[in-house]
Amino acid sequence: MPDPFFQPVSGIDSPRFAGVPTFMRLPHVELDDSRIADVDVGLVGIPFDSGTTNRPGARHGPRQLRDQSTMIRMSHPVTRTNPFELVNCADLGDVNPNPVSIEDTFERITAFYRRLASQGIRPLSFGGDHSLSFPVLQGIVDKGNPVGMIHFDAHTDLFDGYFGDFKLTHGTPFRRAVEAGVLDPERVVQIGIRGTAYGFDDIEWAEEHGVRIIRIEEFMDRGIEDVMTEARRIVGSAETYISFDIDFIDPAFAPGTGTPEIGGPDTYTAQRCVRLLDGVNIIGADVVEVSPPLDPSGATAWVGVSIAFEILCVLARSLEARKSGA
Amino acid sequence: MPDPFFQPVSGIDSPRFAGVPTFMRLPHVELDDSRIADVDVGLVGIPFDSGTTNRPGARHGPRQLRDQSTMIRMSHPVTRTNPFELVNCADLGDVNPNPVSIEDTFERITAFYRRLASQGIRPLSFGGDHSLSFPVLQGIVDKGNPVGMIHFDAHTDLFDGYFGDFKLTHGTPFRRAVEAGVLDPERVVQIGIRGTAYGFDDIEWAEEHGVRIIRIEEFMDRGIEDVMTEARRIVGSAETYISFDIDFIDPAFAPGTGTPEIGGPDTYTAQRCVRLLDGVNIIGADVVEVSPPLDPSGATAWVGVSIAFEILCVLARSLEARKSGA
Amino acid sequence: MPDPFFQPVSGIDSPRFAGVPTFMRLPHVELDDSRIADVDVGLVGIPFDSGTTNRPGARHGPRQLRDQSTMIRMSHPVTRTNPFELVNCADLGDVNPNPVSIEDTFERITAFYRRLASQGIRPLSFGGDHSLSFPVLQGIVDKGNPVGMIHFDAHTDLFDGYFGDFKLTHGTPFRRAVEAGVLDPERVVQIGIRGTAYGFDDIEWAEEHGVRIIRIEEFMDRGIEDVMTEARRIVGSAETYISFDIDFIDPAFAPGTGTPEIGGPDTYTAQRCVRLLDGVNIIGADVVEVSPPLDPSGATAWVGVSIAFEILCVLARSLEARKSGA
Amino acid sequence: MPDPFFQPVSGIDSPRFAGVPTFMRLPHVELDDSRIADVDVGLVGIPFDSGTTNRPGARHGPRQLRDQSTMIRMSHPVTRTNPFELVNCADLGDVNPNPVSIEDTFERITAFYRRLASQGIRPLSFGGDHSLSFPVLQGIVDKGNPVGMIHFDAHTDLFDGYFGDFKLTHGTPFRRAVEAGVLDPERVVQIGIRGTAYGFDDIEWAEEHGVRIIRIEEFMDRGIEDVMTEARRIVGSAETYISFDIDFIDPAFAPGTGTPEIGGPDTYTAQRCVRLLDGVNIIGADVVEVSPPLDPSGATAWVGVSIAFEILCVLARSLEARKSGA
Amino acid sequence: MPDPFFQPVSGIDSPRFAGVPTFMRLPHVELDDSRIADVDVGLVGIPFDSGTTNRPGARHGPRQLRDQSTMIRMSHPVTRTNPFELVNCADLGDVNPNPVSIEDTFERITAFYRRLASQGIRPLSFGGDHSLSFPVLQGIVDKGNPVGMIHFDAHTDLFDGYFGDFKLTHGTPFRRAVEAGVLDPERVVQIGIRGTAYGFDDIEWAEEHGVRIIRIEEFMDRGIEDVMTEARRIVGSAETYISFDIDFIDPAFAPGTGTPEIGGPDTYTAQRCVRLLDGVNIIGADVVEVSPPLDPSGATAWVGVSIAFEILCVLARSLEARKSGA
Amino acid sequence: MPDPFFQPVSGIDSPRFAGVPTFMRLPHVELDDSRIADVDVGLVGIPFDSGTTNRPGARHGPRQLRDQSTMIRMSHPVTRTNPFELVNCADLGDVNPNPVSIEDTFERITAFYRRLASQGIRPLSFGGDHSLSFPVLQGIVDKGNPVGMIHFDAHTDLFDGYFGDFKLTHGTPFRRAVEAGVLDPERVVQIGIRGTAYGFDDIEWAEEHGVRIIRIEEFMDRGIEDVMTEARRIVGSAETYISFDIDFIDPAFAPGTGTPEIGGPDTYTAQRCVRLLDGVNIIGADVVEVSPPLDPSGATAWVGVSIAFEILCVLARSLEARKSGA
Repeated sequence: MPDPFFQPVSGIDSPRFAGVPTFMRLPHVELDDSRIADVDVGLVGIPFDSGTTNRPGARHGPRQLRDQSTMIRMSHPVTRTNPFELVNCADLGDVNPNPVSIEDTFERITAFYRRLASQGIRPLSFGGDHSLSFPVLQGIVDKGNPVGMIHFDAHTDLFDGYFGDFKLTHGTPFRRAVEAGVLDPERVVQIGIRGTAYGFDDIEWAEEHGVRIIRIEEFMDRGIEDVMTEARRIVGSAETYISFDIDFIDPAFAPGTGTPEIGGPDTYTAQRCVRLLDGVNIIGADVVEVSPPLDPSGATAWVGVSIAFEILCVLARSLEARKSGA
Repeated sequence: MPDPFFQPVSGIDSPRFAGVPTFMRLPHVELDDSRIADVDVGLVGIPFDSGTTNRPGARHGPRQLRDQSTMIRMSHPVTRTNPFELVNCADLGDVNPNPVSIEDTFERITAFYRRLASQGIRPLSFGGDHSLSFPVLQGIVDKGNPVGMIHFDAHTDLFDGYFGDFKLTHGTPFRRAVEAGVLDPERVVQIGIRGTAYGFDDIEWAEEHGVRIIRIEEFMDRGIEDVMTEARRIVGSAETYISFDIDFIDPAFAPGTGTPEIGGPDTYTAQRCVRLLDGVNIIGADVVEVSPPLDPSGATAWVGVSIAFEILCVLARSLEARKSGA
Repeated sequence: MPDPFFQPVSGIDSPRFAGVPTFMRLPHVELDDSRIADVDVGLVGIPFDSGTTNRPGARHGPRQLRDQSTMIRMSHPVTRTNPFELVNCADLGDVNPNPVSIEDTFERITAFYRRLASQGIRPLSFGGDHSLSFPVLQGIVDKGNPVGMIHFDAHTDLFDGYFGDFKLTHGTPFRRAVEAGVLDPERVVQIGIRGTAYGFDDIEWAEEHGVRIIRIEEFMDRGIEDVMTEARRIVGSAETYISFDIDFIDPAFAPGTGTPEIGGPDTYTAQRCVRLLDGVNIIGADVVEVSPPLDPSGATAWVGVSIAFEILCVLARSLEARKSGA
Repeated sequence: MPDPFFQPVSGIDSPRFAGVPTFMRLPHVELDDSRIADVDVGLVGIPFDSGTTNRPGARHGPRQLRDQSTMIRMSHPVTRTNPFELVNCADLGDVNPNPVSIEDTFERITAFYRRLASQGIRPLSFGGDHSLSFPVLQGIVDKGNPVGMIHFDAHTDLFDGYFGDFKLTHGTPFRRAVEAGVLDPERVVQIGIRGTAYGFDDIEWAEEHGVRIIRIEEFMDRGIEDVMTEARRIVGSAETYISFDIDFIDPAFAPGTGTPEIGGPDTYTAQRCVRLLDGVNIIGADVVEVSPPLDPSGATAWVGVSIAFEILCVLARSLEARKSGA
Repeated sequence: MPDPFFQPVSGIDSPRFAGVPTFMRLPHVELDDSRIADVDVGLVGIPFDSGTTNRPGARHGPRQLRDQSTMIRMSHPVTRTNPFELVNCADLGDVNPNPVSIEDTFERITAFYRRLASQGIRPLSFGGDHSLSFPVLQGIVDKGNPVGMIHFDAHTDLFDGYFGDFKLTHGTPFRRAVEAGVLDPERVVQIGIRGTAYGFDDIEWAEEHGVRIIRIEEFMDRGIEDVMTEARRIVGSAETYISFDIDFIDPAFAPGTGTPEIGGPDTYTAQRCVRLLDGVNIIGADVVEVSPPLDPSGATAWVGVSIAFEILCVLARSLEARKSGA
Repeated sequence: MPDPFFQPVSGIDSPRFAGVPTFMRLPHVELDDSRIADVDVGLVGIPFDSGTTNRPGARHGPRQLRDQSTMIRMSHPVTRTNPFELVNCADLGDVNPNPVSIEDTFERITAFYRRLASQGIRPLSFGGDHSLSFPVLQGIVDKGNPVGMIHFDAHTDLFDGYFGDFKLTHGTPFRRAVEAGVLDPERVVQIGIRGTAYGFDDIEWAEEHGVRIIRIEEFMDRGIEDVMTEARRIVGSAETYISFDIDFIDPAFAPGTGTPEIGGPDTYTAQRCVRLLDGVNIIGADVVEVSPPLDPSGATAWVGVSIAFEILCVLARSLEARKSGA
């Protein structure tokens, strides 16, 4: 029985362009609000892009994603499930970042997500650049009890360092997360990798540590069902993080991102991939690297939000299944 | 034997950016011009978007479509037919709308199309928002003698009302047309439906009344030939209207529209769908929801015009076949 | 002594691109929230543009204005006053509009503003098209007790009807307001009028009824101080409404509007005009006709918000003076 | 008594975004149409930019200018005159250009304008790059009977040759026109010249031949009235051509042009300059260098059209005065 | 053993947005520089678009392509080869064009490429409009010893003349090259042809002369491997030119081009086509018709550069194989 | 007698869109090139924006500024001096930044500028965000021998810290420079300050330390000559740095910047201000905060480059005067 407080505003009653924009027209609940105790899934913005090595702008992602998200309606068209009837969702606002310090921001992110984790809230995060996945994982995962990950991206983000060995960038989060003991490399699968390379250190490191990389050629040749079956097998039934870099999708469909690589999948393919996450034990998820200055039209943010809704549906079903099973 | 008066200007003689822009560089013939009697197919603009529930702008569609249409050449590249050699086509100008009154505009549209119908002119209309299909149908169809329809769209447009039960919007035209006795629901097929839903009232109403909905998943799985064969079977040999909402096509290809839904077909697929309308008894057609403010580049209008040319080819062949058969 | 609840978030503490965007980073207080009783000035969005006779888009104004408004800081640079220390301000959200009915929307607006007026809240409204000033005035003014108005605009908005005598458009609000007895034409001054004309009916009606029109040539020749002194004299000390159409400003500075007219004042001039409203007994104000689809960069919304902050400062001082005087 | 056939469509009756766009919503009259005999002023497009030495795009000018021109209303706001009541105006379509040959295009332009001149039609031309003024002058001026010119521009366009001494470019038209005996250098005044220089050959040539150059510094220091009084004195009462390069105006106001120079006048100043042409014996005029790809918003075209309307008003008054005087 | 002088700057050391932009961050070597003797492959810009019959802008292609090319990394992700380790590559700057003369520019291009050919440098050229392929071929091919060509395009560019039979345009280069004896029509294959037609003269001429045209329908139906096997068979082992018009790719992926045709292949397909050129004896290649004013985002240039990198890889392998074989 | 090596390429010989873009088409001379010894003025890019507290993008400034700078011609139109005939100028490339570390980047900048200073080269720098002025000053000024500064800006950039007292941002450089002993506060004048304020700490700090702030109101009221006379008096004849933040200029003229403030001066005023620096003993200068993602049209970069040319002229004259005087 859904709580009316946590229901999105309907576009049949109030046009989609009206109102203060929150994620999917959900109520805005701050961390110190008493209603926080009732939240199952928290939608969180992380407006930070100082880990970017190339073109900035993803710091403006959460705002444009909120704006576009007001066009989302409540029900999934294929499965006909309504996630807002299954779990209580809320917009928890943004983590307050420090644009002039990566280290300080990472501490702020980790602290914010520890509070969420302590409340039993599963996060669906909206970036921001991909570096944020590292402090998010540190916030929601106990060190030494690493989680698995299904990672959609054009790049591995497994590099060691940039610009004279600086370690915290949007090209390095998952190497850091493995080193920090919050990500189990043998339960990590990366899908959609493509684009030219500076070298193959990331690939070699992945092979050494057991990370499974499914390049775009393999993905296209084998087909979605086969690839996603393998992905589900790799992560198994233990807790798994979903990280969705918008540059997984071809830049014709999602141009607003800092490091686009041509030759990627279309949105129909991306939607179907996410639907095939059904049954995965999702501990949290993020959609990152939407960069509004590189797509003022909002089209990329609309893609990001539409994918986030797909993720929310599988996350809500996963949570409800576990509740029902308890 | 084509009438030279009705031939488009060639880009070999006059560059495509030159001249007062009419649809496909055809002559501009007003309704009260004596040449109207010779027109077989009338290209008409309906610059109206006050039925829009979300993002406006389609009122500017006809002008941008005319602009882009000057890049169309005369002959179809696959079938090598030249529609302008088969039938006399003309740009009949715009229906004069009233942007501050839906009801008044609908009366103007219906009156305009009654004049066309009385001259035996088949209309190819350029919107404007999708609400206009309702008054167009009222203008060209005798009440009680409803026509069939092949409808390409991401949405059913079969809702009942919005914002406290207001009945005339771009989400409701075909429900109104069925109620008005100008559209036969059992000869209606809707192709490409997708996107999140406020609920499933439209779907349920469709099922009750016999409207056939082919969702995007079914469309992608079965393939174009199979789907279009079924569509032609549903409408049969009786008079049929073609309604093409540009949001049928994926927003990467046609971003300039008010209510985009990701995960749609590409333009190659859309072109082939229209080509497979060959043989349908087309009473009229429209291309709607091109919204220039959402795509100043004109790329979406170019898609709209290219699709309209495909429709014009099957419409011209259909008309000529009927003439020859007479 | 300012109430901390009503203080904007500082950009020194939280970067301006972070957080759910409310007007000027103020708290969002709904009409049925208990804190409403403490609000002195309510910032309200009216996302409505169905009264537009030309290019739509102003329905998206409030959202973009909220977005840009997060760049406003708390203190006025010249007078060094901080309006948020003088009065309690809040973002009251949007009036829920009906985009397919002007009449229904006007009733909703008037009802909303009656509630504000009954709480003693002075409104600062963000449009939306200029038609909204009429129902706002009906909400905050007692019929038969009409107020004065200082009106900045390129157009008089005093026409009688459009498209066959339809009376409710963005070209007609003030004629309607005079007819409805909520606006006293002899205490109305219009500043900045320019642009080509369909005829001079509006001018003649203004002359008959005592409306003072200061065209751009007179404005430029006499200078700001002289003109604004006359404006303050015309409205006197009784209650006065401020209506600021963004097209008052030259389109080089504020391109995002539906009916631009070249040859207008720059923003420095506009700011100084508003500062010279100091001392006027302001009952409410609006900033209208910002149309985001016509300026995706947000520059026009930034101008609109900067002007709104100037208005807020004189409004806050006016309110405080009256409080102190009581 | 105005001829109803030559009246523009009013935006009160038909919204400005409706209809096939002609210049100022005038009737489209081809050169071989019988109504051509009644035309006093012909508005002509010259979609040609192959004389451009830097950034192309002005070939698309006439189309965007027609589009924007539908926002012009019939009456001048200051003088309250309606040019369409004084003289018969029509859109004569475009000169058909050859984008791959400057020489061929110049012959086409000259031939077109000779036909106009032979009908006694005064042209108001819309470019296109500035090279077109040379063949236009050759079409309307008898060789050996050169005319004067008031020329608004950021550049003198008096260079001798480019890229190894090629003589026909948009930097050379007026040197060519003087050499060809259609322009009298001693009755030429150039206003607004500014920007960095390759050298001072153009200036020296001007000084030798008696062309009067009023640089921007002198223009700003002396003021409009003084400068325009001198300009009127220089051209006297004999036939005079008006050439208005949109880059005369500062690029903040008119960004859509190929060779912008900062530090120019605003549109209010430009409007007043044109109004001060009242009384000049205008043989024809052009507005050139509006480049739509460099301003997709249409703002620059709107400026161009607004200036063209100012020119049309003085041209119509000039023609009427001469008719009345006869 | 690669020469360090000819290595691109790495984005790991210096961020991709830094530095004077050369093609792929290679050294800029002028034709009269002593290092020219060591260059194997020369990347050359040809900023010229005066052969365009429709929308100009490709003259700005080389600059935007250089800008975007700084995002290319050194190694091919699938074959793991690094072309910069196989051959010495350099940016040779631009051919200096004459925008006001096609004939003069063609002479300049041919002269420039003769110097390259005399040094044994293979050119990879960046346009510019497609007319440039003709003078390039004249520069690198001995008359009477014609080469083959694999040509990716939406148009055949085999027309005879435009605008009254002007022979040098971007619609005519390959007819001219065959006539000039530098292109062997029986070893030419054109892939991706589609779009509406003025007539079928180009097709008929192709059939007469033995040019093989693979239209988009055949391409889609047969699949890439089959088509490219035929293409390689047609050109055989003799010298072959590669010409890649960006409008081969669907405009959703590459919107920035003057004559887009919907219904084209995606970038993944285009990449795979180029990879299947492996083994072809490539004498030179070009990527043309990227038009920055039609895609200010740079996305199309990024596609162009990514395709150019694919070509560079097969060209470098082809050159190395021949060196090794010697 | 100018050295031909250091002459810019002329647009009369080679069109402005051709060639690898360097600043003002000057030769690109690296720091370790032997020609560096002959350079008098070095144009340097600093592509860094990680000190930005609000909207990023200025890291892309140098590239777009180089692109636009190819439209600059050699001679100043008013003084008719050609700076390239007075001193040897070269493009020295970019300082290689580290986008993920402010501290590391500042060290790199300071080291680069120490090398320049040791060669006696005066720098004209192109940002980048305003934080870079601090390490530049550290590079060219001996600690304890502080220089004066004329600073054009909408903001003082004299704040102490952000986001919990982080000291290195684009809001703090000049407070840091005073603290570091490289800037003499009593010889600093700031012109154009405006915009809303978080508080007045910066103003109070300025007053305490003797920094002279000329707010926009004072600037507008007194006029340029009077203000600039005072500015020249404040800095006197000792070494003085010029810092020009593009947001000094009104955002209608220069929209591409991260923190725009309405109500600023136009470009004509800005040009004249810079011209009035004639005679100042300029040790170096910068133009900062041009942010290309916020103005893809390049108009703001064009303003930036045009201002930089004005600065270069006074700098060259200043250097030459000193040389001649020696």
